[in-house]
Amino acid sequence: MEIEVGRSLLEGNERRAAELVGIFREAGVLALNLISSPGAGKTSLLERTLKDLAPELRMAVIEGDLQTDNDARRVAASGARVEQINTYGGCHLDAAQIHEVLPRFDLRGTDILFIENVGNLVCPVEFHCGEDHKVALLSVAEGDDKPEKYPLLFHLASVLLLNKIDLLPYVDFDPLRAERFAKAANQGLRVLPVSCRGEGQGLAAWYDWLREALRDKRR
Amino acid sequence: MEIEVGRSLLEGNERRAAELVGIFREAGVLALNLISSPGAGKTSLLERTLKDLAPELRMAVIEGDLQTDNDARRVAASGARVEQINTYGGCHLDAAQIHEVLPRFDLRGTDILFIENVGNLVCPVEFHCGEDHKVALLSVAEGDDKPEKYPLLFHLASVLLLNKIDLLPYVDFDPLRAERFAKAANQGLRVLPVSCRGEGQGLAAWYDWLREALRDKRR
Repeated sequence: MEIEVGRSLLEGNERRAAELVGIFREAGVLALNLISSPGAGKTSLLERTLKDLAPELRMAVIEGDLQTDNDARRVAASGARVEQINTYGGCHLDAAQIHEVLPRFDLRGTDILFIENVGNLVCPVEFHCGEDHKVALLSVAEGDDKPEKYPLLFHLASVLLLNKIDLLPYVDFDPLRAERFAKAANQGLRVLPVSCRGEGQGLAAWYDWLREALRDKRR
Repeated sequence: MEIEVGRSLLEGNERRAAELVGIFREAGVLALNLISSPGAGKTSLLERTLKDLAPELRMAVIEGDLQTDNDARRVAASGARVEQINTYGGCHLDAAQIHEVLPRFDLRGTDILFIENVGNLVCPVEFHCGEDHKVALLSVAEGDDKPEKYPLLFHLASVLLLNKIDLLPYVDFDPLRAERFAKAANQGLRVLPVSCRGEGQGLAAWYDWLREALRDKRR
């Protein structure tokens, strides 16, 4: 019973997600679904990316949170168009919620739409939001074993940002071990070590990945 | 429809959890449900606690993980009785799963049963596993805003361990701000800053909390 209902919920979501895929294709928007544990640094990554790439790309953000619009306010400070979805206990965003806020964006005037999901390494992975790519974040403070313990995200993501590498001297985290576990789930996964503080170590490679994904989308 | 089904699932779980409460009361076992994001340090806390309190208390562990028995093996190295539950995609433990592994424990020979839930700050909170207390962990690397953004756990927990305080010099985390947000959700919450590395800063207060909770349980 539980499984049946779960399946029909997921199938309903897939239908709405397929509509989103069509809408994003039509508008030429690259849609990215950012997924991680709470506190892995999704919002900091967005703040930095929006600021650094503002002269070059037109970006917009959908912020998913259980409560508060703190992250939306942080991200809006960059000047980007931001819409908040509060799930009030819901553990993930779904395609219907994306549909609801989409009319508030000028999609034809947007290059990249970032969807910052609820902080959760498990549930958001199963609900497609019409995105072209899932972007996984893992903070080095979380431990290098996480891709082995929570493999589905790493299996389905196109790129993994190993974030907060400025903390590497102070934690027990072996980036090569994390990468090995992540690639066991997904051989084609791109793994990019980054820090969103100070110089923004590694972010240039993330920006190149974004440019390339946008080119591929519009080819 | 979704809500109705969700409600009946939760009600079914509450019934099974109430049975567990009776079993734990009968056996005089203090049951603790450890809940946090992935990588906040639940397993490290258990490793340390089992080792430090082994001469004094009889402890056992139920390990919840999507995949792998890595944590069970880490914890078993202490000599404690450990049983693994793999949820294979399931985002939380539930009371039925606890029932299933319980016969493998000698409950009458156990003082404290730790239930290490799946790493997830959202879903495990709604599924009572018969525990006396929810124990929340938050790593200082996750950010001091998390109790405001994910309030339900902090509302329902009896104690919050602010873990990895050895990282405080390297992250932007204000323990007082985190405590203020957490206490806005739950005025009676005990907040204990700890580190499970090196000297084990703050762990003595956690051990005192455990002793007191066990005394209260058996009063």
